[in-house]
Amino acid sequence: MTRTVALALLHHPVVDRQGEVVTSAITNLDLHDIARSAFTYGLDRFYAVHPIEAQRELALCIKSHWVEGSGARRIPDRQRALSRLEVVDSLDRAIAELEPPVELWATSAAAGPGRLGYAEARARARQGQGTVLLVFGTGWGLAPSVIDRSNQVLEPIRSPRSDGYNHLSVRAAAAIILDRLFGHEG
Amino acid sequence: MTRTVALALLHHPVVDRQGEVVTSAITNLDLHDIARSAFTYGLDRFYAVHPIEAQRELALCIKSHWVEGSGARRIPDRQRALSRLEVVDSLDRAIAELEPPVELWATSAAAGPGRLGYAEARARARQGQGTVLLVFGTGWGLAPSVIDRSNQVLEPIRSPRSDGYNHLSVRAAAAIILDRLFGHEG
Repeated sequence: MTRTVALALLHHPVVDRQGEVVTSAITNLDLHDIARSAFTYGLDRFYAVHPIEAQRELALCIKSHWVEGSGARRIPDRQRALSRLEVVDSLDRAIAELEPPVELWATSAAAGPGRLGYAEARARARQGQGTVLLVFGTGWGLAPSVIDRSNQVLEPIRSPRSDGYNHLSVRAAAAIILDRLFGHEG
Repeated sequence: MTRTVALALLHHPVVDRQGEVVTSAITNLDLHDIARSAFTYGLDRFYAVHPIEAQRELALCIKSHWVEGSGARRIPDRQRALSRLEVVDSLDRAIAELEPPVELWATSAAAGPGRLGYAEARARARQGQGTVLLVFGTGWGLAPSVIDRSNQVLEPIRSPRSDGYNHLSVRAAAAIILDRLFGHEG
């Protein structure tokens, strides 16, 4: 039995630097980078989640350029990665499209009780039935409501710096977490 | 004895998708993402290397916005990371600024003989004197001339996919490699 693994990038509900719940804008390179990382590490699906229709249209336009347009002819490798991108209006919509049961694994730069370590996460990710949906937040990260409804929250990526600085981009954090869960050093 | 570790992002000499040696353009988010990843993982310096003056000015303008301008007031955490960014015209200029002896550790998505594995790289990176300079290429990667002059070439990041797809962005690859060399899963 092998579980499906998918990734969702949320633009709402996320928090801003004051901790207020906001909706962030689509960043072109988030879609590119995370699609390529997700495809490289063998994920089955990548959802860009945005509640605003015009922003979803922008995401679909980027996808279309690379999957059907001139970008597909120019860089076929990018076509394959971007073809796994789905654009939906909510986390619940992504969950509804995936094979149940869907376990939500949230990510956070903040420490907290009961965080799932990477060794255990790696052992469990593909085991069982249904789907693991890795959830990443743009802006300053996922809103508490998403953390609270998740089945697991992964350990934050810790800095070796003594001051604990860890302000990675969501593109970098997603790449590192996928490598920790699915990479092998050959 | 602890070695200095620095990172250089080259825009020349790099190759395009046909393998021709070219000069690539500065990508704003490369500077942001790699500066933040390098700072998070405790690197001492980050060099953006570009032979064209107007492109170096663009890079310095981005740095200045975040280190001295309105960006610094708005997001102080980004100020700290971007303040480690240096903009130089060649790899040799970066080497000349670093404490000798400087060991070049190149990165490549391609396999090859004698590649340095991550367990050994992790053990050696901070050991000894002088500097380890991790070298990343934009475009389709470092030109052969850079690979040839390097003291080490790190193993490629392998995909768990059976078709071996690995088309990571340089932002994602740098994040993953820094995590493998300096991360700890605590």
